[in-house]
Amino acid sequence: MATQAAFAVRFPQLARPSRGQGQPAAAAARVAVRGGGRAAAAAARGVRCRAGGLIEPDGGRLVELVAPEEGGRRAALRREAAALPHRVRLGRVDTEWLHVLSEGWASPLRGFMRETEFLQALHFNAVRGADGSLVNMSVPIVLALDDAQRRAIQASAATSVALVDAHDRPVAVLRDIEIYKHNKEERIARTWGTAARGLPYVEEAITNAGDWLIGGDLEVIEPIKYNDGLDQYRLSPAQLREEFARRNADAVFAFQLRNPVHNGHALLMTDTRRRLLEMGYKNPVLLLHPLGGFTKADDVPLSVRMKQHEKVLEEGVLNPESTVVAIFPSPMHYAGPTEVQWHAKARINAGANFYIVGRDPAGMGHPTEKRDLYDADHGKKVLSMAPGLERLNILPFKVAAYDTKHNKMNFFDPSRKEDFLFISGTKMRSLAKNRESPPDGFMCPGGWKVLVEYYDSLAPPEGSSKLREAVAA
Amino acid sequence: MATQAAFAVRFPQLARPSRGQGQPAAAAARVAVRGGGRAAAAAARGVRCRAGGLIEPDGGRLVELVAPEEGGRRAALRREAAALPHRVRLGRVDTEWLHVLSEGWASPLRGFMRETEFLQALHFNAVRGADGSLVNMSVPIVLALDDAQRRAIQASAATSVALVDAHDRPVAVLRDIEIYKHNKEERIARTWGTAARGLPYVEEAITNAGDWLIGGDLEVIEPIKYNDGLDQYRLSPAQLREEFARRNADAVFAFQLRNPVHNGHALLMTDTRRRLLEMGYKNPVLLLHPLGGFTKADDVPLSVRMKQHEKVLEEGVLNPESTVVAIFPSPMHYAGPTEVQWHAKARINAGANFYIVGRDPAGMGHPTEKRDLYDADHGKKVLSMAPGLERLNILPFKVAAYDTKHNKMNFFDPSRKEDFLFISGTKMRSLAKNRESPPDGFMCPGGWKVLVEYYDSLAPPEGSSKLREAVAA
Repeated sequence: MATQAAFAVRFPQLARPSRGQGQPAAAAARVAVRGGGRAAAAAARGVRCRAGGLIEPDGGRLVELVAPEEGGRRAALRREAAALPHRVRLGRVDTEWLHVLSEGWASPLRGFMRETEFLQALHFNAVRGADGSLVNMSVPIVLALDDAQRRAIQASAATSVALVDAHDRPVAVLRDIEIYKHNKEERIARTWGTAARGLPYVEEAITNAGDWLIGGDLEVIEPIKYNDGLDQYRLSPAQLREEFARRNADAVFAFQLRNPVHNGHALLMTDTRRRLLEMGYKNPVLLLHPLGGFTKADDVPLSVRMKQHEKVLEEGVLNPESTVVAIFPSPMHYAGPTEVQWHAKARINAGANFYIVGRDPAGMGHPTEKRDLYDADHGKKVLSMAPGLERLNILPFKVAAYDTKHNKMNFFDPSRKEDFLFISGTKMRSLAKNRESPPDGFMCPGGWKVLVEYYDSLAPPEGSSKLREAVAA
Repeated sequence: MATQAAFAVRFPQLARPSRGQGQPAAAAARVAVRGGGRAAAAAARGVRCRAGGLIEPDGGRLVELVAPEEGGRRAALRREAAALPHRVRLGRVDTEWLHVLSEGWASPLRGFMRETEFLQALHFNAVRGADGSLVNMSVPIVLALDDAQRRAIQASAATSVALVDAHDRPVAVLRDIEIYKHNKEERIARTWGTAARGLPYVEEAITNAGDWLIGGDLEVIEPIKYNDGLDQYRLSPAQLREEFARRNADAVFAFQLRNPVHNGHALLMTDTRRRLLEMGYKNPVLLLHPLGGFTKADDVPLSVRMKQHEKVLEEGVLNPESTVVAIFPSPMHYAGPTEVQWHAKARINAGANFYIVGRDPAGMGHPTEKRDLYDADHGKKVLSMAPGLERLNILPFKVAAYDTKHNKMNFFDPSRKEDFLFISGTKMRSLAKNRESPPDGFMCPGGWKVLVEYYDSLAPPEGSSKLREAVAA
């Protein structure tokens, strides 16, 4: 019976370093980038220079949509936006997408999707580039309009609108606009593979959004900042590429995380680097890349997770020399196999040529049935077959658990499964809430402390508080 | 405002005849195919011979899964199937898909989908061929199993099962089987873009189907026959290719229809041929290709539609010399933009390099809301962008209506829209039911007679019959 064998996913061959990705090429490219004369000479010889010899962005060139600081462009754009008759106010998730688009995470997209891009994302999880080739793009990046706005804009035959923040301050201009229908039912069904009520992103950003979508080309006035003490972690794809080149990386492996980081993750990262070194890479660098946009209410907030990440580096659980910690500004869809493609594709644009895919990536419980929304294996299967991701090397996640025999996190060994303890997010939460300690070596002490403090800071749930009052009375 | 311009679909350039598709190449290829010596000589010169110079099937070779008549293969297969311990009984729609697969309409698929193909169809509307290239495949072609069957097959570690008809007679063997979960909710949401109850295909073939799917390689014992007096119209892709080559076609344009044919359709067909001749093709042949599989209860049945098609040719509304009428054996999904890709892709395998796409192809009313299920323009937009259909020339449907000024069907002219009368399917039905005549020239007399007889043969709806009794009483 072929069931088991056929279930096995055919992962692309792990690429060995080749010219253009290997160390010597990387070094040459850095020299070329920094030494203008040599770059010109290299170009004259027909040598293609890429910063750090990193993987090319989708579409061949990183899209950057923020007006340059020099030359008065920002002031001019601000004046233009202020004078435009139509203003579309951005909600929290809209602003996160604007941020994503402005820095080229979604290259080659140059703005909120027009209808052809929207339809391609929904039906094919990929859009066609200018040269006809397919670029992966699995989630719609769209901006909604209500009917009154739509009518006003169409009545005036405007071709541009200003995008403004919650205080009505212009943040961008959207040009060559196109307005088209926002069929929410179809968008949700095709993106999530369900129409069940209770999908977090849907409730946050779709249910109450307008019935029209507006697409166009973006020009953003200045870099998006959140002023939450974490902006220094919000490195753009261009900044990350520069950093990888500076570190002389000849392979970049990305890890997406939206949950508290523990030593199992660290073990996986360290082991991945070891495997890449064995393959012949000289300096594989980890992009440890927690998601920073919208997450559901019961996920641990970004500020807490970032403090934890700081501890992981401070306490030497991960080597700071081969690790770049940064924030991925995208909001979370919790759309499983559809969304994991977006998570991977965006990291290509930041220079990653290896992507570590977990069990049930971007998954969650079904909102109305007692089961996981997605088959835990579908994420990595879909990712390994996705159009436009052929260049990316997919690394399957090796499951780590607490090894009670060796008192540390270890890769799960099915031959002695009784030795292993799986500590779920729920378990971790309940331990932290009750101020119990996890087993030694599960998480670095600083990281655990951050988590306990977070749970302490939460108001106790209503039920238990009433219980305490009852007990006290 | 760019809305209107951006709405315009970018249709692929209409291909002009080129070597390999043009008449001389076609003639040469036919000679080569029929004259073994010349074919060998041509092959020696590196000339690639294809029957009639027609468009290549997906995957480069037409898949044919019916055992050859010669050499005792059918008897051996029948014995093998009879001896297999596990039998899966095919329902009506399963048999239609078996038919579709067996003749290579879904080339390069070689059987019911395994999970990797199923996931690719759902997420990408395309599957990767052996060489890594993408082939369009937008609807899942799958076979369901219930839990008891799944357990029995898995317990025995069988690698093949027999597929049997309603009378338990073996029709095929499925080899190298793979069993995987049938997540109906996800399948429906991703295929139809809705989870609304009342989708005809879902109610017919999914709701009551098992929770597992079984994929594998098919070997079919003998050609599928229905013995309904229409089998002579059920030409396989290979037979159609042979017919097009025999007619010396240098372009084949396909038209999919599931509704009664009227003179507006005929006008469109005739006009398309004229345009293809103007482009330089010498002998464009029409594949008039009504869908013959499952349709919803209120659609006009195949037998009636085929009688109508016969009349259209008999009465010279279409030229029999440049028209091939045949039945497309697929069941109907009514899945709009998703399904139209299947309709187009299957016709490539039958040799068509032009496909006429209508308004709202494969569309229907929303089952629970008062609106069309799909945006009427999305079908042709999605079709024009679909991965794997780049080789197909998409011809947009020109809308015809009854021109009251010239008393015939004519292409709609918006400059004198008051002259045009649109006769919907519902209107046609109500006219035929009430034995009223449509306007002169709307439909050929024989075709109209067939339709009137069909409606006469239907039992009157309960309401009206009660009304008649009430009136009579």
